[in-house]
Amino acid sequence: MSVEITRLANGLTIATETMPTLESAALGIWVKAGARDERPNEHGIAHLLEHMAFKGTSRRTARQIAEEIEDVGGDLNAATSVETTSYYARVLKNDVPLAIDMLTDILVDSRFDEAELEREQQVILQEIGAAEDTPDDIVFDHFQEAAFKNQIIGRPILGTRQTVKSFTPDDLRRYLARHYGPDRMVVAAAGAVSHKAVVEQVAAALGSDATPAPVASEARTPASYVGGEYRQSRELADAQMVLGFEGRAYYARDFYASQVLSLILGGGMSSRLFQEVRERRGLCYAIYAFHWSFSDSGVFGIHAATGEDELAELAPVIIDELIEAANGISEAEVTRARAQMRASLLMSQESPASRAGQIARQLMFNGEVIPNDELIARLDAITAPRLADLAGRLFTGSTPTLAAIGPVSRLPTLDALGSRLDAMPRMKVAAGA
Amino acid sequence: MSVEITRLANGLTIATETMPTLESAALGIWVKAGARDERPNEHGIAHLLEHMAFKGTSRRTARQIAEEIEDVGGDLNAATSVETTSYYARVLKNDVPLAIDMLTDILVDSRFDEAELEREQQVILQEIGAAEDTPDDIVFDHFQEAAFKNQIIGRPILGTRQTVKSFTPDDLRRYLARHYGPDRMVVAAAGAVSHKAVVEQVAAALGSDATPAPVASEARTPASYVGGEYRQSRELADAQMVLGFEGRAYYARDFYASQVLSLILGGGMSSRLFQEVRERRGLCYAIYAFHWSFSDSGVFGIHAATGEDELAELAPVIIDELIEAANGISEAEVTRARAQMRASLLMSQESPASRAGQIARQLMFNGEVIPNDELIARLDAITAPRLADLAGRLFTGSTPTLAAIGPVSRLPTLDALGSRLDAMPRMKVAAGA
Repeated sequence: MSVEITRLANGLTIATETMPTLESAALGIWVKAGARDERPNEHGIAHLLEHMAFKGTSRRTARQIAEEIEDVGGDLNAATSVETTSYYARVLKNDVPLAIDMLTDILVDSRFDEAELEREQQVILQEIGAAEDTPDDIVFDHFQEAAFKNQIIGRPILGTRQTVKSFTPDDLRRYLARHYGPDRMVVAAAGAVSHKAVVEQVAAALGSDATPAPVASEARTPASYVGGEYRQSRELADAQMVLGFEGRAYYARDFYASQVLSLILGGGMSSRLFQEVRERRGLCYAIYAFHWSFSDSGVFGIHAATGEDELAELAPVIIDELIEAANGISEAEVTRARAQMRASLLMSQESPASRAGQIARQLMFNGEVIPNDELIARLDAITAPRLADLAGRLFTGSTPTLAAIGPVSRLPTLDALGSRLDAMPRMKVAAGA
Repeated sequence: MSVEITRLANGLTIATETMPTLESAALGIWVKAGARDERPNEHGIAHLLEHMAFKGTSRRTARQIAEEIEDVGGDLNAATSVETTSYYARVLKNDVPLAIDMLTDILVDSRFDEAELEREQQVILQEIGAAEDTPDDIVFDHFQEAAFKNQIIGRPILGTRQTVKSFTPDDLRRYLARHYGPDRMVVAAAGAVSHKAVVEQVAAALGSDATPAPVASEARTPASYVGGEYRQSRELADAQMVLGFEGRAYYARDFYASQVLSLILGGGMSSRLFQEVRERRGLCYAIYAFHWSFSDSGVFGIHAATGEDELAELAPVIIDELIEAANGISEAEVTRARAQMRASLLMSQESPASRAGQIARQLMFNGEVIPNDELIARLDAITAPRLADLAGRLFTGSTPTLAAIGPVSRLPTLDALGSRLDAMPRMKVAAGA
């Protein structure tokens, strides 16, 4: 495995990893701008822009975009997250130049036709409805909103029906000009690709004045984790619950330790929560922990879904497991978590799509691609006592966030759950101060 | 690419494909028995058995199963479908022997402990609740039930709360003994594996008398597609709709042509339904066509989700597109669909998990692994006129099936939609008789 990286004079980064035995490639353009880079009155525009990128350029209608990539059996797609937006393709070897041509075309020369915009706004209204109808999806929106109350970073990425309908082609152009500068883009490719050929073609397409110059990169409002409760009674078979705390930023000292802790608490069949909640008590079908990082903050949470009666029992059990973690993590658990992270790292690098995404994210967030040896060394440096200490700090260091929808009347209040957290070993908290 | 296949005297088939550059492997045991092999009073037992396989053997407790595989960073999982059940693992190269040991252990020596069973029954009740709460999941259960009315093949795989709770360890043992004979199993592995080593280890574990001998393979009741309507008003933002027809069995002459037709109608961004319904009319976020095959029948359907008002317009548009397809398919569409199938075939073969699954399914359903050249030749033989002819036969050859949940009051009835189908070119129907 070896990643080749080229930085162009305009700030654009291009990285490739050639996987010699493959007949296909995955490639994309990652932009370091997402939903949190919207202005207050732009709610949903980052996601709308991502949709509109497929709706026609000077050289291609929306239909031609769809047909041209599928004519070669390829696939174009895109995704918007809190801090990034990505546009990517999966193609066979010989079609890499076509994919680069299309991805760069839609980024620098999209037309934002009025009629296309109007239809796409309708489509996103249906997408908002679909999210509302999916309980284990929408509960995370409520969680993020409660964790980052009244902040742009806490808003649902899709926007609201009202805001989505309000945007004009000029609104899209303004957001694009403000955020899609070459210095905020990474082109990454993995599989059957040649670095030299990718660099030459991308430079020709994005390295010239055709790229919209960013007016002035707007500084993000720093995220401020708040915490609190959101609860909505809804007629569902299962109640959905997400309980969480302030997590760690990508650049934080505790970033890797937080990832390992989430694995030990609720990362697989052998994790503490799975064993205690599902295997020993039969309380739910699925439970897991997660740690999501942003550039200046993060959230550490646990998701579970279960029936009304089971929920009343389940929530305190989760709190008790958090306290147990602060009381001690075993060496066997740390060894297992390291093995899991190492294996998932190696396996994901055998998939061109996963690998291209990894390379792009590391370049965006760390400015470099971290070699496996170094990643593994960072994991190896994490000890059991440090993880227990981190648990104590994480689970008492912020106001908890609780989001619940469904038959939730028997779920204890956030205050009741919070006071159960008082049993958390206090000396550990001091140690982390 | 070359698959090595060994058939043991007891009927077990073992197939591997060595992918020399990989550091990991995917492997599993596929059993040619699923939900439709249940007896009338066994509703949900195939899926319950799949869950109980992870709940302890003579040599390992449930917890040990979870810990042993995750100690090496591996992953065990399983899935139950209408006609098959699969148990599979993802591991690094050196852990292939462990994965084989565990997969064979849970298949031949599971204990079905009473207390474990009771807890797992509770877990499945939560899983049933989760399915009911996911509209774009449960609508397919209703579709299958209406398509195969009052038949075992039409029942939801999870079972009902009542049936799931009713099963005893002996019920599980009886189902297992009846269906899990070595002659109905395929072991498939892809990635960093050696055929000889896999065969030796699997033969030692499954080739002896330890394998439960099948009492007598019970013949399946032949599936009889019925069709009809299921409609449920529910307070949701979007209405979910699946409209379908009788499809083709795996072994049918029209199997590949049906797959190609579903791609042309609703397989990607350039497909007819996506272009007409989403791109030209902005009526929904997602729409796609599917063709699912069983050993003796199949269903061809279209899924869409959209708001109440849009649904009333959308349903007739779908019918019109079906009629259009019978009126003619263009050469360009056929060429594109072939390119899509060829590319997705090649790309999936670069992933060990996809490849192991492909090999297993081809061996179960065709008794052989079909070489790429031959698959591509079969696709190349499908012409545009044949596809139009097939569309005419598919969309008039059976009573349509309509399943809809959500705000569905404005959706036309199945009868109204059906009579719109009268515009289907009749001569095509005759041609296919």
